[in-house]
Amino acid sequence: MPPNLFYAQSGGVTAVINASACGVIETAREHSQAIGNVLAGRNGILGALTEELIDTSLELSMDIASLRSTPGGAFGSCRYKLPSPETHAREYKRLLEVFSAHDIRMFLYNGGGDSLDTAWKVQQFADSQGYPLTVVGVPKTIDNDLPLTDNCPGFGSAAKYVAVSVQEAGLDVASMCATSTRVFIMEVMGRHAGWIAAAASLIQDDSGYPPLTLLLPEIPLQQEAFLARVKDQVARYGYTLVVVSEGIQGADGQLLSASSQRDAFGHAQLGGVAPRIAQMITQQLELKCHWATADYLQRSARHLVSAVDLEQAYAVGKTAVEYAVAGQGGVMPAIVRLAEEDYRWTLKPVSLSEVANVEHCLPKDYIAEDGFAVSEQGRAYLRPLIQGEAPPSYAHGLPRYVRLKNRQLKPKLPAFSPA
Amino acid sequence: MPPNLFYAQSGGVTAVINASACGVIETAREHSQAIGNVLAGRNGILGALTEELIDTSLELSMDIASLRSTPGGAFGSCRYKLPSPETHAREYKRLLEVFSAHDIRMFLYNGGGDSLDTAWKVQQFADSQGYPLTVVGVPKTIDNDLPLTDNCPGFGSAAKYVAVSVQEAGLDVASMCATSTRVFIMEVMGRHAGWIAAAASLIQDDSGYPPLTLLLPEIPLQQEAFLARVKDQVARYGYTLVVVSEGIQGADGQLLSASSQRDAFGHAQLGGVAPRIAQMITQQLELKCHWATADYLQRSARHLVSAVDLEQAYAVGKTAVEYAVAGQGGVMPAIVRLAEEDYRWTLKPVSLSEVANVEHCLPKDYIAEDGFAVSEQGRAYLRPLIQGEAPPSYAHGLPRYVRLKNRQLKPKLPAFSPA
Repeated sequence: MPPNLFYAQSGGVTAVINASACGVIETAREHSQAIGNVLAGRNGILGALTEELIDTSLELSMDIASLRSTPGGAFGSCRYKLPSPETHAREYKRLLEVFSAHDIRMFLYNGGGDSLDTAWKVQQFADSQGYPLTVVGVPKTIDNDLPLTDNCPGFGSAAKYVAVSVQEAGLDVASMCATSTRVFIMEVMGRHAGWIAAAASLIQDDSGYPPLTLLLPEIPLQQEAFLARVKDQVARYGYTLVVVSEGIQGADGQLLSASSQRDAFGHAQLGGVAPRIAQMITQQLELKCHWATADYLQRSARHLVSAVDLEQAYAVGKTAVEYAVAGQGGVMPAIVRLAEEDYRWTLKPVSLSEVANVEHCLPKDYIAEDGFAVSEQGRAYLRPLIQGEAPPSYAHGLPRYVRLKNRQLKPKLPAFSPA
Repeated sequence: MPPNLFYAQSGGVTAVINASACGVIETAREHSQAIGNVLAGRNGILGALTEELIDTSLELSMDIASLRSTPGGAFGSCRYKLPSPETHAREYKRLLEVFSAHDIRMFLYNGGGDSLDTAWKVQQFADSQGYPLTVVGVPKTIDNDLPLTDNCPGFGSAAKYVAVSVQEAGLDVASMCATSTRVFIMEVMGRHAGWIAAAASLIQDDSGYPPLTLLLPEIPLQQEAFLARVKDQVARYGYTLVVVSEGIQGADGQLLSASSQRDAFGHAQLGGVAPRIAQMITQQLELKCHWATADYLQRSARHLVSAVDLEQAYAVGKTAVEYAVAGQGGVMPAIVRLAEEDYRWTLKPVSLSEVANVEHCLPKDYIAEDGFAVSEQGRAYLRPLIQGEAPPSYAHGLPRYVRLKNRQLKPKLPAFSPA
């Protein structure tokens, strides 16, 4: 029996992370001479530490295929970070014990910057212990903030969701503005990188219609200039649209966000910026506002994914397996843009050491000079990523999303409580 | 030349109100022996008062057809109420002057309760003045709160949007709950009627999965029972979902909503209930929450309409024209449910006098005994209304929505400023 492959989902899920899982499992099944079984971690890497390993061989091929069109994380994800073998030696050792007990020689970690950093550290630790393990990253994040890849699977679909939502709400406010709402504000995710907000720029034609202002986390809020811009646009068009990143900072460098809760990684948990911007506009300009906060909707809207994103999400899963089978560890498949206007792309391996903990924000030349819009260059970058539709099938008016059996293997080791 | 028909959109728009406009204009064009031109009010009935009349004969047939798949109000809507000829004699008289100047003998008013009340008053006023006018209502409201009709065009699509969004976000939180978010809260529209929130119940299977709690405006918030339910569901499933109507009241009968702004009709402008519920759960139960506020997205999401709703929205527009041509004034086409399980429906005229100002809330037997869910009877009512998909066509990754020319007729009368 060939060795097993361990696959885990990590961090905030996306509308297409299960397409990567589908790519992993379907491709592993095609390599039955090299891979015995795909064991999935229940709740990500925690499932490895607690020895909660899901036996994917019990899932029907048609159910695995349905992962391609099911949002969320099918095996559970987690916000749990393994910082380093120096501080978490017990956890790193346990990981290898579990891998050894279940003959796991390949580890595919599907996540963003933090998780790819962990993947890199696990590879190094296994090497240092002489444990034969091939670790491959499977990139994923709606934040689009990983370096060395054209974009991140999950982003294109969040981008499409935000663009379509703002386009549609824009038609609503345009029809209400004579006697009612003048400004519609939509809050989107993005702690430090404004990629998701930037995607809204794709709804504008070359004349800059409909009117839109972006508040990006890369640019501290210039309140006076912002209010002047809103006022001017309302005077010209009767209404305007604002898309604000949750991570927007005030001129003082402090987050505008109301909430000061922190997540398991120690990051501030954001949310609630839209009502603040609405209040600012209502009080300073006396214009009626409406606001929406998309929150999880923007990263789970499988009904509105980008076909390009879906294809790339599947491809990084499939290619990660191929790297693993070839024994190419410590890398992830990165997306390479071959042509922009008539978008073509390919994948190549990049070292996890170069990806780990580097945050790729909107480059300066993608942001318009006034800081409130995206440059033509930025729009040219973004445009291909929202192309194409890939709706799920529906039954009785609702999407058909699969729910796997998720049966776990019997544990072989003593229980373990991760720190 | 036969007389003209005046068509106006009123109040909050829906994802399918333009489908009603499409039904009106296409049907009027088929009745060229009885109807000269369809003149549309710029910004609803205000356009009649200010003599801003859009000449729809200048629009191409293919653009009118595209209204079927374009959200928002194509001619502009308004929040402007004409209470009665007693208090607003000047406006009622002006209306007839403008109608007379442009040979308008038919008036189709596309709106909710307030607007259908106005339509009824205009019919009576014209009759009392001996002006030959046939007024027909075209029902529309995402709130689904009109009496005497099976449902209201616009509701089914909002219902589908909310159900799909909660279904998708539910898969997200289910995969995050081991280490992060335990409760996802979505705020939806509904001032006094909980129909939109109730639609979320359609995502549950017969065993009540996924776990869901509805906070309906019909039932004052029972805080202790609510928190106990959330706690219990999190204990059983690891997570839970809450859908809250903006109009939810506390046990004291006061709105929980933070905002106290009022709209042009004097209704409180609501919003901001979701973060309050999140705060309550975080503080009392120490469970991590995420929340979304859909706001305009739920009534403009043309990309996700219910095919049944779209068909009904078109049909009420078409049939209203047929009533007008037949001289049947003071009525609106109401939807009649002929069969529920294998949904069949027809339209019949009902008197506007019986519709006006009657608010149809969720009946008691549609609400579960504990007040936090919808009964099987309620779900049986709701289920047909979200059936079928009717996506728009897309170009370059975004829906193709039409923008009409909207050229106005030259005014014939002196300027007029409505009160």
